[in-house]
Amino acid sequence: MSFANPIVQAGLSGLASLYSDRAVTPVEACEAYLSRIERLDATLGAFLAVDRDRARASAHDSAERWRRGAPLSPVDGAPVAVKANIAVEGLPWHAGIGAYRDRVADEDAACVARLREAGAVILGTLNMSEGAFGGSMANPWFAKTHNPWVRDHIPGSSSGGSAAAVAAGLCAGALGTDTLGSVRIPSSLCGVFGHKPTSGLTPMEGVVPLSWTLDTVGVHARSAGDCASLLGAASGAAAELVQEIVDPANLQALRETPVAALEWSGVEVEPEVRAAFDATVAATRAAGIPVEPLRLEGFDFSDRSDLFLLCAAEGTVVHAEALEKNPEGFSPSLRARLDIATTRSAADLARAYRVLADAAEAARLQLAPYSALLTPATPRATVSYAIDYPVMTSFTALANVLGLPATAFPIGLDAQGRPQAVQALAWEDDVSLGLAALLGHDLGAPPAFQG
Amino acid sequence: MSFANPIVQAGLSGLASLYSDRAVTPVEACEAYLSRIERLDATLGAFLAVDRDRARASAHDSAERWRRGAPLSPVDGAPVAVKANIAVEGLPWHAGIGAYRDRVADEDAACVARLREAGAVILGTLNMSEGAFGGSMANPWFAKTHNPWVRDHIPGSSSGGSAAAVAAGLCAGALGTDTLGSVRIPSSLCGVFGHKPTSGLTPMEGVVPLSWTLDTVGVHARSAGDCASLLGAASGAAAELVQEIVDPANLQALRETPVAALEWSGVEVEPEVRAAFDATVAATRAAGIPVEPLRLEGFDFSDRSDLFLLCAAEGTVVHAEALEKNPEGFSPSLRARLDIATTRSAADLARAYRVLADAAEAARLQLAPYSALLTPATPRATVSYAIDYPVMTSFTALANVLGLPATAFPIGLDAQGRPQAVQALAWEDDVSLGLAALLGHDLGAPPAFQG
Repeated sequence: MSFANPIVQAGLSGLASLYSDRAVTPVEACEAYLSRIERLDATLGAFLAVDRDRARASAHDSAERWRRGAPLSPVDGAPVAVKANIAVEGLPWHAGIGAYRDRVADEDAACVARLREAGAVILGTLNMSEGAFGGSMANPWFAKTHNPWVRDHIPGSSSGGSAAAVAAGLCAGALGTDTLGSVRIPSSLCGVFGHKPTSGLTPMEGVVPLSWTLDTVGVHARSAGDCASLLGAASGAAAELVQEIVDPANLQALRETPVAALEWSGVEVEPEVRAAFDATVAATRAAGIPVEPLRLEGFDFSDRSDLFLLCAAEGTVVHAEALEKNPEGFSPSLRARLDIATTRSAADLARAYRVLADAAEAARLQLAPYSALLTPATPRATVSYAIDYPVMTSFTALANVLGLPATAFPIGLDAQGRPQAVQALAWEDDVSLGLAALLGHDLGAPPAFQG
Repeated sequence: MSFANPIVQAGLSGLASLYSDRAVTPVEACEAYLSRIERLDATLGAFLAVDRDRARASAHDSAERWRRGAPLSPVDGAPVAVKANIAVEGLPWHAGIGAYRDRVADEDAACVARLREAGAVILGTLNMSEGAFGGSMANPWFAKTHNPWVRDHIPGSSSGGSAAAVAAGLCAGALGTDTLGSVRIPSSLCGVFGHKPTSGLTPMEGVVPLSWTLDTVGVHARSAGDCASLLGAASGAAAELVQEIVDPANLQALRETPVAALEWSGVEVEPEVRAAFDATVAATRAAGIPVEPLRLEGFDFSDRSDLFLLCAAEGTVVHAEALEKNPEGFSPSLRARLDIATTRSAADLARAYRVLADAAEAARLQLAPYSALLTPATPRATVSYAIDYPVMTSFTALANVLGLPATAFPIGLDAQGRPQAVQALAWEDDVSLGLAALLGHDLGAPPAFQG
């Protein structure tokens, strides 16, 4: 189903066409989104802070540029929002952790600054799981975000606010962060496109780290092209990214090299998820792209203990001062997750780094003959709040370990009305986004958010 | 003083000229070195295994090539030796650790294979401190290596056998490994040139690691040019390296960018070492190269605890199986050094990595305006066996943390007859080697090894 409001239905790139055609102004679009946030977010729980005045001022400036026919970029005037661990000048910047609840960002994170330089309208900040370290989107300090498609199911973490807000049409795109899958998991569960870029592509200044080894800033939107536009602006990467993913030559190139389809073991995957994966593999072949099964030896999809030790150790260093001064500002469950780093030894951590480096090297060699790897995005589709977070990272963490780009994309709804998603991991951002553009579908408006 | 034998006095590159002029054959050179090892190593304690038959066969093949006027490289026929943690096919490969004493390498390390492909004659393997983790050159399992210049003083560790053998003229060049200074420290104390290359330049396959983060294979020789020849062959790097460091254009380029001279604090430096450093700074200026003092903020030259924790943790992973099965195969002092990794926490190690990464970033920014950094090589000159190893790494570890090349080079002997050395750290191998070529001097033969 579509969003009733054509401004919202247009998505991020669609808005640029509407602006260019003078069918809509950035001020109207900004007001449309602010009004939806006002009206609908109480039932969604995605926004933590709305920056109305500054958004309106930005929209006004953007409108002037479009009026003069001189937009700054494809995202000029695009209403977007930002995960609460990414600094937005003047707004609380706490990464979902109680200990930082009174901290206000005194400048924009580098990726937000780049978005503003590209003309984007920053609507506000979005709920996340505490410290971006797995955990529930019922954040113990701030808000409980719901899945816009299936009430009382989780939106996925840790960028659950970002994915839910995009899915519900409360912003045209959003920034999230992805350490083990934190952009792709909620994107999958909320039925939007989520892209974790090549590590290092998006700048990390002004982002509260969880793991400096694995963190990346990623994007959520309702199409692969919108993700590319947002990524291009946030990273300062070549604007050609958008062009590349929709370029027919790109698709032709994809037909010349096989794509691998993961054959996994040790991970329990819901039948609906497997069906979605199989259907996508078939669709890939139908598009003329050769697909070969690949059992990735040396990478254990069922064991995430090394990754969680790494995050616990680096996260403990990141938050050392606050953990010392204000331990009560961390929930017992987050403290327990971080505490692994103090009960396990330095040798254990060195071993974890070694195991992951060896697994990455083995995976790179096996992936070398392929342009991309298709996997399920998450082992389970939308689920209740009781889900064990680590299990949800089974298929996403590989891209963080490799430092490679990966896109989770929606392909439809299952019989229970839950979004179905698949992941494409590739050597280049335009390839995973290109596959997502080819194989994914905009699911449109969740029933409760159409009007 | 010179070595009485012109073959030995010639050094590594000098031999190539003698071969080319047909004044000497590789077979004669090989026999000269084998005979010196036979005659003199009993008092030096550098060699652990001598590969006479294979060396003679290699020398014979090399002689054939030189006779035909078709040498494989500038090191064709060069008699060189290899630290005992680097695999030489058919020789014991134990890294100075008792637990591995019966292990024989079934193939050459990649760097040794490259040397052979370049025609080098591998004489044998050299003593080292146990596990390359600091410690004494009185290796508890194998041999005690002496300083060839000052009897009963240490040759420096951990590549002490390599540096001592080169200094005493028992080989024309040697391979060592350098994790915190293990090539440069013994080179300094033994009065030879020691070069730690850019990290990654020399291949690590077939080398027993201590720290995969910090390890590099480096070279020891009696001139910077000889180091460059050996490095070129061992790394497969461009043969132009040698040409570049002696090219007058390189010196002219050095005159256009200032060199930094370290101003340190917190490290107690012997007056003779300081005098050598000051003299070298003056010589640099006299050569027309601008020198500016630099106090490197953010890098603590007096605190090596993070580095030793990192080595302990990674070393514990490297040796995990042997530590489990045969703990008595490690000396109590090496076990104590490694045990830090099990008594300290994962968070401590993550903090160490973070501190070092931050220090490296700060150092890189401050070094950016300079072509190179001059520092003392070690805080103390030749010393007795009681020296605390960590202190000796004060000035060398920076290059490992940065992954940058650094060359220790001899400039003379002090009033006590001890070699004096200085270190040049640079952005490129040819620059640190070029400074060493300009400012360093071949000290010739130690009194006990002239004949």
